[in-house]
Amino acid sequence: VDRSRLEAFSDGVFAVAITLLALNLAVAGPGHGTLGHQLTTRWPAFAAYAVSFLTIGIIWVNHHALFKSFAAVDRVLVFLNLTVLFFVVLIPFASSTFAAYLRSGGADAHLAAALFELVFLGMGLSFFAVFWWPVRQGLLHVPLSRREASAAVVRFGIGTAGYAVAIGVAFVSAGAALAISALVALYYVFERTPAPSEARGAAPGEQT
Amino acid sequence: VDRSRLEAFSDGVFAVAITLLALNLAVAGPGHGTLGHQLTTRWPAFAAYAVSFLTIGIIWVNHHALFKSFAAVDRVLVFLNLTVLFFVVLIPFASSTFAAYLRSGGADAHLAAALFELVFLGMGLSFFAVFWWPVRQGLLHVPLSRREASAAVVRFGIGTAGYAVAIGVAFVSAGAALAISALVALYYVFERTPAPSEARGAAPGEQT
Amino acid sequence: VDRSRLEAFSDGVFAVAITLLALNLAVAGPGHGTLGHQLTTRWPAFAAYAVSFLTIGIIWVNHHALFKSFAAVDRVLVFLNLTVLFFVVLIPFASSTFAAYLRSGGADAHLAAALFELVFLGMGLSFFAVFWWPVRQGLLHVPLSRREASAAVVRFGIGTAGYAVAIGVAFVSAGAALAISALVALYYVFERTPAPSEARGAAPGEQT
Amino acid sequence: VDRSRLEAFSDGVFAVAITLLALNLAVAGPGHGTLGHQLTTRWPAFAAYAVSFLTIGIIWVNHHALFKSFAAVDRVLVFLNLTVLFFVVLIPFASSTFAAYLRSGGADAHLAAALFELVFLGMGLSFFAVFWWPVRQGLLHVPLSRREASAAVVRFGIGTAGYAVAIGVAFVSAGAALAISALVALYYVFERTPAPSEARGAAPGEQT
Repeated sequence: VDRSRLEAFSDGVFAVAITLLALNLAVAGPGHGTLGHQLTTRWPAFAAYAVSFLTIGIIWVNHHALFKSFAAVDRVLVFLNLTVLFFVVLIPFASSTFAAYLRSGGADAHLAAALFELVFLGMGLSFFAVFWWPVRQGLLHVPLSRREASAAVVRFGIGTAGYAVAIGVAFVSAGAALAISALVALYYVFERTPAPSEARGAAPGEQT
Repeated sequence: VDRSRLEAFSDGVFAVAITLLALNLAVAGPGHGTLGHQLTTRWPAFAAYAVSFLTIGIIWVNHHALFKSFAAVDRVLVFLNLTVLFFVVLIPFASSTFAAYLRSGGADAHLAAALFELVFLGMGLSFFAVFWWPVRQGLLHVPLSRREASAAVVRFGIGTAGYAVAIGVAFVSAGAALAISALVALYYVFERTPAPSEARGAAPGEQT
Repeated sequence: VDRSRLEAFSDGVFAVAITLLALNLAVAGPGHGTLGHQLTTRWPAFAAYAVSFLTIGIIWVNHHALFKSFAAVDRVLVFLNLTVLFFVVLIPFASSTFAAYLRSGGADAHLAAALFELVFLGMGLSFFAVFWWPVRQGLLHVPLSRREASAAVVRFGIGTAGYAVAIGVAFVSAGAALAISALVALYYVFERTPAPSEARGAAPGEQT
Repeated sequence: VDRSRLEAFSDGVFAVAITLLALNLAVAGPGHGTLGHQLTTRWPAFAAYAVSFLTIGIIWVNHHALFKSFAAVDRVLVFLNLTVLFFVVLIPFASSTFAAYLRSGGADAHLAAALFELVFLGMGLSFFAVFWWPVRQGLLHVPLSRREASAAVVRFGIGTAGYAVAIGVAFVSAGAALAISALVALYYVFERTPAPSEARGAAPGEQT
């Protein structure tokens, strides 16, 4: 399997999914209250858009950094990658469901929030598998040291734990669950994949 | 025709089609029963999503493996490939129709299931043509031996036969037809295209 | 401007537009008559899908053949190419409008058919400009001989004339207009761009 | 970060967003007045389509010219680029909202126009950041001279100022705001990014 074609297909899915997110923002049009009222009561749609956009954006950034470190791509990895895409494709659905129910409150809002976080959790676990399989199979350009591997596991663990906690929190407060996924996304803006480029001594901060 | 641009266009279509699948999952929103009820009664949409996603994913994997073995791409192959895409683009439509009618039962459910399997059959037959034309025209990097060619025909035949059987089964049980297409998809997860890379002695299991 | 990035962006637009065509096929779901009835009365949607799919497919094939012959891409060509894409993006809209009105007959059906053919005409004229500008500016790898240039103009002229005729015919018979655009598409399946590869002596029929 | 994969992902988002614009053109179908009436009363949708299409097209052209001048892409630039995409993805939403409210007039039309221009302003400011960061960090192939940098700032400033003015104008006349964004788009058709290729002495007008 060519790494480049796997990346191109994944990038296509990321690009379509991230763009479809905005379809959820559509307002009902004239005759459904003032536009100002519609836009303000639809804040959950905008909040869900922002969090989902940032999350897919970060998945793309990390996907990119990760695949650059793979010297070879085997068939198992192709299917693990499909699992990541399976959940990425679900994000616009989970995001629109969440936005639709967040304001209605009650059991439905909690369930919608839990579903949203569940999709993120599924994506996070799949992504971990995409990282772990090449490490185990020795498909990296530069093998990770034990310390680097541990650091990477901690790094993935924090996001995964964040989403798992958010599922529980969703049943208490849907808004708090959304806030947790926003924090997880922000965490990954600053925390970087332990790329082998660092092992190779590239100046950090200049080229990722 | 550049193989790479043909692949890029096909990958684009695969990526959009696979992402549009999730549009079918949208729930009706507040005021249409509890969200839990909506999600559970909509299980056919999730089942159709899973089967369709896996099927398009596998088409992509096989498409990729196949085109890697082509030394040249002629105009006939371009149009045969368009036929594959013609059916791939129909999958989200067939999938959403199937999901809408599966639970209603009766003649409509059977027809919707048959339509779903018919689209898969059309895709399978087109895909076979995309495989067979370059073999016949000698466009492969490494020609297939007679045994390899036979193995490939058997391999394609099993999927095609599966979809043909599923069309018949659809008129008895729509759910059983769906189960057959799930099995066909799983079969192709494990059964691999007889790629010339094996003829060239690449270590199987390491790089497809 | 890199030719490759222009091609990649165009391919993306072609891929999304061709896949969105199938959104027009969606049936109304249970409670709107039998599925069989819905599918058969919706034959215009399937006919419009087939013609539009083939047309976008052929635009892609010809776009690809054409750009391969360009040694350089200038800023004017980039904007001419955007004009082609402007009309390609309108095809799913024109196709769905046509499908919605074809069966209702009367003035609306004629107008919808004329709109459909107008979009194809706009695409055809833009495509001609994308061909003509590099010829005039000497941006080809191998300049066309006068005879080759004339042949190309005839070739483009036939499609353009076809669409222009179809606009007139639309006001008499919407179905006949659709048939003309199907014939134009079929014509381009067999008629090939006068690519400079032929001037370079590549075996015709083997590699385009 | 590979420049090429960043470009591929961005191109994917541009291609999907530009193609989704046409979804807003869909007419209501038979039984909602004549098609001719529907099409003419929906002129705001076509005007918004034309302006939005041209704007995304130009963002793509400029994005392309800009990234070609970057010798390296760092992590900050990746996230600044995501900000551009964040606003690009909002354009189909802003465009459809604008089209829906333009004819209804009053406060809603003004608000919809202001929202439309606000999204363009956000895109313009993000784009400026994508330009400015590599200049400041010295990531260009050929550093800009002070004069070139000033010219670029003026160039970006005109578009940004145009959108800012349009937000104010929107509260007076929604149509005038739309006209301003059309003018800004046309301005960028003719005004070119001060690309380092000029500093390197490439013949202007031949290859951008």
